Amino acid sequence: MRIGVIGYGTIGKRIADAVRLQEDMELVGVVKPTPDYQALAAARKGIPVYAYDEKSLRLYEEKGLPVEGTMMDLLEKIDVAIDASPGGKGAENKKLYEEKGLRQIYQGGEKSWVAEASYNSLCNHDAVIGARSLRVVSCNTTGLLRLLCSLDKYFGVEKARVTIIRRAADPRELWRGPVNTVSWKNLGPSHHEEDARTVKPGLDLIVTSIVAPTTLAHIQIHDIKLRETPGRDELIEKLASTPRILLLDTSAYRLNGTGAIIELARDLGRSRNDLPENLVLMDSIRMEHGWLRIIQVVHQESIVIPENIDAVRAMMGKKLEETLPVTDKTLGLLHGVLDAALLAKK
Amino acid sequence: MRIGVIGYGTIGKRIADAVRLQEDMELVGVVKPTPDYQALAAARKGIPVYAYDEKSLRLYEEKGLPVEGTMMDLLEKIDVAIDASPGGKGAENKKLYEEKGLRQIYQGGEKSWVAEASYNSLCNHDAVIGARSLRVVSCNTTGLLRLLCSLDKYFGVEKARVTIIRRAADPRELWRGPVNTVSWKNLGPSHHEEDARTVKPGLDLIVTSIVAPTTLAHIQIHDIKLRETPGRDELIEKLASTPRILLLDTSAYRLNGTGAIIELARDLGRSRNDLPENLVLMDSIRMEHGWLRIIQVVHQESIVIPENIDAVRAMMGKKLEETLPVTDKTLGLLHGVLDAALLAKK
Repeated sequence: MRIGVIGYGTIGKRIADAVRLQEDMELVGVVKPTPDYQALAAARKGIPVYAYDEKSLRLYEEKGLPVEGTMMDLLEKIDVAIDASPGGKGAENKKLYEEKGLRQIYQGGEKSWVAEASYNSLCNHDAVIGARSLRVVSCNTTGLLRLLCSLDKYFGVEKARVTIIRRAADPRELWRGPVNTVSWKNLGPSHHEEDARTVKPGLDLIVTSIVAPTTLAHIQIHDIKLRETPGRDELIEKLASTPRILLLDTSAYRLNGTGAIIELARDLGRSRNDLPENLVLMDSIRMEHGWLRIIQVVHQESIVIPENIDAVRAMMGKKLEETLPVTDKTLGLLHGVLDAALLAKK
Repeated sequence: MRIGVIGYGTIGKRIADAVRLQEDMELVGVVKPTPDYQALAAARKGIPVYAYDEKSLRLYEEKGLPVEGTMMDLLEKIDVAIDASPGGKGAENKKLYEEKGLRQIYQGGEKSWVAEASYNSLCNHDAVIGARSLRVVSCNTTGLLRLLCSLDKYFGVEKARVTIIRRAADPRELWRGPVNTVSWKNLGPSHHEEDARTVKPGLDLIVTSIVAPTTLAHIQIHDIKLRETPGRDELIEKLASTPRILLLDTSAYRLNGTGAIIELARDLGRSRNDLPENLVLMDSIRMEHGWLRIIQVVHQESIVIPENIDAVRAMMGKKLEETLPVTDKTLGLLHGVLDAALLAKK
């Protein structure tokens, strides 16, 4: 599949890198309107960069940055447009993609009607095979669905009550606040509830989302009513066997905060300190009166990247078992309980 | 040279990685008292870890983390001890190193008497060749000296007046504040002044250091009275020819803050988003009435790493020209004006 990535910010640049690691995909180019430092780094990597229009093309040329043409040039050369432009812009781009007969992948910043279906690998991959357009749900919804769909498969999920402590901005988003207040947009139904139901209809879910002035990661505190009530060991064993779920014993390894978890990613040599796994904090797990209390950390910059790659393969007609192991291997994802033995495996 | 790194925190773990990239050095092991997540990541890399004492050895064994012995075992096997333990602890360790007849390198957290000389590659390398103990000055002093010694060589430095906006803590230091105040320790002479003079005696320097609640990098605002007053182009040309100085055109590439600069490091694939170069903000440079105004960013976690490697080679009797190019090549350091042409070189 010949892939173009439209939009080269937090998500787009990571998708581009991930596509380049897949043997069955070719990254034809990325569209980046502004020749900023991210375009400079893309040039260093040899990623073919396309400007947005003639005006942005000239900005590239003025800076002596390599540029292959404009977005319209790129659209002529690809089979799949992965749109990672700012929320709402994808819907605007849709008519261009349709005119060119392209398959389309969108991100969670778009409304769900932009694509035939919303998508999460662990929830509904096999149901969307062959789709011509898919929408990968947002970072928090992706983290939430990976956990809830897996628990539902193992034990049945009756309902979930979730508090999210959101990071306020990504590290590069110098313009976003708040700096020094804990805040919220609304305290009624969070958009994550409806978003999760676009992938898993009927899910009984309440989410409250509170913003903390930090850039590192989201924290999700779940209370989940399960149909069957496993023992703690059985629960951990099941989660440890689940792809894209990495269990951290935070008290044993002093991982007492998102800063330490991101530092671990740096020490492990992860590209851009990315952690696309659900980071389940093992010592938070409590099972009382049929309710599971469990906390996970979601790295907002990278968690949706594996799902974007799987979504391309869903369009190629590949089943989950034909894409997920390949994606996880090429991206170096871990699952299981993080300890010396797990790390020695790779 | 057989090297042991004593202390495996922010600085120690980076020195260990850097030593492993040198053909003329062998990393025999590192000493890390606490088996936290950093020890886990060291195990993943195959770095031989030594506990501090018998008690800490047992903590490793309980967690199933590979451990080679205790600090005393490591000291038997090495020629050079690079001490990167918390400030003040190096001086305590000194008598052990002396007993074993080891050469010693200390960090800037130690008092200057701990070693025969304080050290910066661009200032006094050739004067300390053959030393048996050296102290690499702290991050801010290193950044400051690289710039001032280079300018002194090119144009003569009469005096320097500097304001440092310090990062409050390293990303992993969850326990350090402040969270939401701009603060200072003292407004009289900063320790950087005396520290810089341990390397460059007689330097006329005033430094005020203000702490900002961030973890990313220091910012140094310099006003420097030069003996000769070059034009802006000549100044930039000289700085661009200086190793370990990377000039950033921040307005051209939207690098408007430490967050963007660290994001650039992530995009460039730098290990742990490290930037051991002095990051001189080119658009800050102004030359008026014989005074140079110039601003640079100092990445506190990594800037002293090249200096530690050069310090080992000073002890091996190598001249600056025999170490600096090797260090910079193995660590992937850049110098010059950052643009597409510079990045294409490597």
